[in-house]
Amino acid sequence: MKRIFCLCLMLFVAPAFAAEGMWTPAQLPDLADVLEARGLQIDPRSMTDLTGHPMKAIVSLGGCSASFVSPQGLVITNHHCAYGSISYNSPEDRNLLRDGFVAGSHAEELPARPGSRVFVTVKVEDVTGTILGDLPAGLDGRARYQAVEDGEKELVRACEEDDGHRCRIASYHGGLRYELIKQMEIRDVRLVYAPPGSVGKYGGDVDNWMWPRHTGDFSFYRAWVGPDGKPADRAEENVPFQPDHWLRVQPGGVQDGEFVMVAGYPGRTNRYRLAAEVANVIEWSYPVRKATYGALLEVITTATENNPDAALKYASWVARLNNATKNYGGMLEGFAKGSLVQRKQALESELQTWIESDPGRRDSYLSAIENLQALVAESRSRQQRDFFYNLAWSSSLLDAAHLLYRLAREQEKPDEEREPGYQERDLTNIREELTRIERTFDPAVDRQEWRHLVLAYASIPPAQHVMAFDQWLGIEGNQVDGAELDARLDAMYAATSLGDTQARLDGIGKTPAELEASDDPFMRMAVALYEANLRLEEEDKDLTGRYQEARPRYMEALLAFEKSRGRLVYPDANSTLRVTYGRVTGSRPRDGMVYVPFTTLEGIVEKDTGLEPFNMPPGLLEDIREQNYGAYADERVGSVPVNFLSTLDSTGGNSGSATLNGRAELVGLLFDGTYESIISDWDFLVDKTRSIHVDIRYVLWVMEQLGGAEHLMNEMGLRE
Amino acid sequence: MKRIFCLCLMLFVAPAFAAEGMWTPAQLPDLADVLEARGLQIDPRSMTDLTGHPMKAIVSLGGCSASFVSPQGLVITNHHCAYGSISYNSPEDRNLLRDGFVAGSHAEELPARPGSRVFVTVKVEDVTGTILGDLPAGLDGRARYQAVEDGEKELVRACEEDDGHRCRIASYHGGLRYELIKQMEIRDVRLVYAPPGSVGKYGGDVDNWMWPRHTGDFSFYRAWVGPDGKPADRAEENVPFQPDHWLRVQPGGVQDGEFVMVAGYPGRTNRYRLAAEVANVIEWSYPVRKATYGALLEVITTATENNPDAALKYASWVARLNNATKNYGGMLEGFAKGSLVQRKQALESELQTWIESDPGRRDSYLSAIENLQALVAESRSRQQRDFFYNLAWSSSLLDAAHLLYRLAREQEKPDEEREPGYQERDLTNIREELTRIERTFDPAVDRQEWRHLVLAYASIPPAQHVMAFDQWLGIEGNQVDGAELDARLDAMYAATSLGDTQARLDGIGKTPAELEASDDPFMRMAVALYEANLRLEEEDKDLTGRYQEARPRYMEALLAFEKSRGRLVYPDANSTLRVTYGRVTGSRPRDGMVYVPFTTLEGIVEKDTGLEPFNMPPGLLEDIREQNYGAYADERVGSVPVNFLSTLDSTGGNSGSATLNGRAELVGLLFDGTYESIISDWDFLVDKTRSIHVDIRYVLWVMEQLGGAEHLMNEMGLRE
Repeated sequence: MKRIFCLCLMLFVAPAFAAEGMWTPAQLPDLADVLEARGLQIDPRSMTDLTGHPMKAIVSLGGCSASFVSPQGLVITNHHCAYGSISYNSPEDRNLLRDGFVAGSHAEELPARPGSRVFVTVKVEDVTGTILGDLPAGLDGRARYQAVEDGEKELVRACEEDDGHRCRIASYHGGLRYELIKQMEIRDVRLVYAPPGSVGKYGGDVDNWMWPRHTGDFSFYRAWVGPDGKPADRAEENVPFQPDHWLRVQPGGVQDGEFVMVAGYPGRTNRYRLAAEVANVIEWSYPVRKATYGALLEVITTATENNPDAALKYASWVARLNNATKNYGGMLEGFAKGSLVQRKQALESELQTWIESDPGRRDSYLSAIENLQALVAESRSRQQRDFFYNLAWSSSLLDAAHLLYRLAREQEKPDEEREPGYQERDLTNIREELTRIERTFDPAVDRQEWRHLVLAYASIPPAQHVMAFDQWLGIEGNQVDGAELDARLDAMYAATSLGDTQARLDGIGKTPAELEASDDPFMRMAVALYEANLRLEEEDKDLTGRYQEARPRYMEALLAFEKSRGRLVYPDANSTLRVTYGRVTGSRPRDGMVYVPFTTLEGIVEKDTGLEPFNMPPGLLEDIREQNYGAYADERVGSVPVNFLSTLDSTGGNSGSATLNGRAELVGLLFDGTYESIISDWDFLVDKTRSIHVDIRYVLWVMEQLGGAEHLMNEMGLRE
Repeated sequence: MKRIFCLCLMLFVAPAFAAEGMWTPAQLPDLADVLEARGLQIDPRSMTDLTGHPMKAIVSLGGCSASFVSPQGLVITNHHCAYGSISYNSPEDRNLLRDGFVAGSHAEELPARPGSRVFVTVKVEDVTGTILGDLPAGLDGRARYQAVEDGEKELVRACEEDDGHRCRIASYHGGLRYELIKQMEIRDVRLVYAPPGSVGKYGGDVDNWMWPRHTGDFSFYRAWVGPDGKPADRAEENVPFQPDHWLRVQPGGVQDGEFVMVAGYPGRTNRYRLAAEVANVIEWSYPVRKATYGALLEVITTATENNPDAALKYASWVARLNNATKNYGGMLEGFAKGSLVQRKQALESELQTWIESDPGRRDSYLSAIENLQALVAESRSRQQRDFFYNLAWSSSLLDAAHLLYRLAREQEKPDEEREPGYQERDLTNIREELTRIERTFDPAVDRQEWRHLVLAYASIPPAQHVMAFDQWLGIEGNQVDGAELDARLDAMYAATSLGDTQARLDGIGKTPAELEASDDPFMRMAVALYEANLRLEEEDKDLTGRYQEARPRYMEALLAFEKSRGRLVYPDANSTLRVTYGRVTGSRPRDGMVYVPFTTLEGIVEKDTGLEPFNMPPGLLEDIREQNYGAYADERVGSVPVNFLSTLDSTGGNSGSATLNGRAELVGLLFDGTYESIISDWDFLVDKTRSIHVDIRYVLWVMEQLGGAEHLMNEMGLRE
């Protein structure tokens, strides 16, 4: 269940802008005039072609974006997107997180973290008709959910018959439109270059979401394939992937006011939610999450305090919790300053008036808002259980046991009837997930984290509890006997073998009966709670099915209304390829203060304390003091630009995206948003929200000053 | 002794600037060309005339600056400068700190806090010859100290024969030059206008030293005199003072880039200290003070937590401690960023070279640096005792007892031989000080504060202890028996009558023998420790005497060196009337960020949370939302300007100063410096240091919107 509790896409949830909008490539021709007027120099229509330049150079890492920058499959992305792989290659005696890494040759490139992928989108196809076309009327939520899922699975199955590809169905506007996304899935990914952590994560959590910023947030991967050029498991005979298209790196960078755009895979936005949904987020969801993750952070910090090995294992999780906590705080501040709920209410009332003013519209749309509101109220009535019960499964061992037993149960069915995530196509993922635990798990920390979250769950109203779970752990109402709980947990951790990777992997392929016979306490718990969890899942699916009907009806009304006002509407982000355009510019975050668009090398010296996270390598500090700018100084800025701001509309998932100039040349990487932009998952603030990019000139300056990367510069065509 | 432990002048210790310098009026003719080029439109030479316009309109409140703004003695200054008087008039049932105050007529004006003064400088005379002229050579420190003090006292005595005047000797460049300052001392001061605290202290301690800023830091006093126009005690027949000159208020304000100047009474700067002195401040004085005051703050906060009456009494003290703590922290940050010690060392080495390159200079100055350095080392060797023993006297009752007994002892001598502070001329002050305690003292809080500081003192090396003190309180080495100390303190607070104002005042005029016979435990302690303290004072005076000889010799060398390089040198601030000039402009506090010079009304709405200290009165918030700008909007700023930044070189004591435009019209009040300017007591940072002013247009807008102050606007000539 822990998989549901994933903050991946929250890592970088950023801004909406002057040129608001995360447009699908297919929408770009409608924007051609604007794009050209703003400074796009290539044909906007060329960007609808996913098999051409530049779109085919844009890739997804699953949660982050990236791009090809050489004909030999060299991929540039953020340091924080490659963080897991850098950490994975940092056992105690070799700290790449701290020291950085450069592969001197192809042979020296290191395997990325298991599960790392490079996805190249090869086809996007509207499949709404196939999925919704012959759905009988009057289905209940559960049945409708199943019908949609069955339709999706069949499409995905057929699509994935093309070996080496990964397919998924993306839903737009809450299920108004469905698209089949087909991606080539490169699964031999290797780490090529990472700057020292004191460059790549300069400013750390302190500067996260902040401006002025001085983070060298870049790293390089390489995509490898089999000798036949097709995706393959890591193997000796593999060769670098040769992409059809790659981006030209523009060492001249950008300047203030210049047109920029980003193509990438933004994860999720909620720009079209109801006023009531926003209000609930402000009043309940975010305050509770902020407090809960904040407390959890303390638990983990304390638990890993004197254990550097465990601290390293939990570093990534801690970073995500830190980020999430700051994120929720920032969003709540943003909500408090803004008036989003009022604006939403006004929009809903305008929409209502527009609907009521026409009999045809009345028939089609009148119940749309009402129906959706009823579902929102229903969700709210169970949100405590949904949130805290999910958290109460946050032991890596319990999670693994649940995964294995669920897999065994699903494997009793024909593949196409299995729950998504447990099909044959998912087995590699599952294997990697079960393996990866060894790098992110420490039994003592896991136990303390879990204990804390069990107690948090126990404190919610007993009516929201799951009885089977309470019985298993001895929770009565809101009462938990601490000593008794400790004894139970001690016994479980003492007796389990699931802390061992091979033991976890051995569980794959076992029958339910075999697992039910297991003595492992975590497996016994997973088995005992299986039915209860399944019932909850059925309820979820029923609710989801009803949402899948209600939200598209509301969105249909809204889209029709906006169209009547001549407004082009971009869909909420859904991890599909999108394009956002805007310009390089500062902002006025608060009355009396201005952010200028570029930071400089000198700002690093200003910030540097010699202590993490403000501890630039001394050699680089010396280079700055001596103004060793190389070829990368900008006359207007007076130094080498480090980071810059733009009006681009981005969110989590856009991290690592190539920032392109008007000629579609790479001038930087998007990696964050300013604090004033945190709210932009929900709200759009023209004056304040800004994306933060690392300037390509800083990337190249660092590589040149640190040395050892000349061959990569050559490979990108930057030297003769 | 508590009087020594005074942070008054730290309240607002602010910046050095592009046009660095706190010039004496006499220096202005030397700057005439620059002043005119920068935008001064009146004759610079007119500003050397202290009896003319505008200088005679500039007054001191003792610790703050202020100015006359009407022919009826209306005085404008900062809210934080009038804070004590507003608090003094805020018993539980009438909270002027919260609600603000406007006197509808002269009769309604309220007495300022006892001891409040308006000082008008009437004469400044060089008396160096008189004081140092016939000083015999070869005096030891103590004797030299006494000779200088005797000379000063005689000059002051003669000067004060002119009734209603207060005179003092100001020393420049550490004693290289002495001036006799004669000020008319108006002692019937009344509170006329204070905005609500949520305007006057908007942003509170959170925003203290910060930009962007939105503080309405202004209030009005009125100076009253006897029917003969001379200073008098508060009395029914008194009349408003009619100054010869007052400032014209310019309701049009200033604009970005405009020339501004401030005439006021900056307290103290240390711009000419040795590298070794700066290093000691960085390594010892400020870290220790920051930690000590921070801890003290917690003690007082806890002690007053559930006692609103006590909290009000200690509000001013808490504000000063808060400010000091932030101040020290900011200075330490500033020192860490800067390179002041290295620059000082370089200067000293240049100076040394210059001295050594000429035989005449060698004879005159060679030993100057060395001698001063030896004294600095000597001071350092006793700084722990100096600081912590002084703090260990921080009970208001012990302080009062010491004051009374010392007074009795001094009164045995002829007046002219008494210690300054205990002469006949000081009796009013002493009476007021002993009275004022009733508004700032709570026995339980006093006891906890004192106990805490006694323990802090006890923890320093016993060699730095004062044995008599240790014996009195049962301190042995670093050991204190907490229970025993509590018992002693309980007994002392139970038995004392000095918590009663009349009892304290009754002590004035008693003989030493009478006080020695007192049963009051605080008096007994003061008596018992008298000789020990006197010995310390003698040591202090000896050291001071030696400084008074050594520092002028060093400064003489430095001034000669600077003159040889064609540099004009302004003396360190010493609470005498100074003029600083510059312009309105923003700054670049950090790489990637800019402060714009004006904040606006809209920024208040942005900041407002409805909770202290960001709780603008709702009516004013509504006015802002409705853009009720009155006549005070600035087209270029797009709203009513609230605060603005300038390059003026100011420090604590400048607070309340009228900010003047090139025609010497009042366009605002200086009240703070930006965080980057905290260091400016020591160091000058052209790009970063900025003074913060409240814009006169905001002052007038607030008065107009809140209403009831039309008569004051009329009085300032702003309405017909």
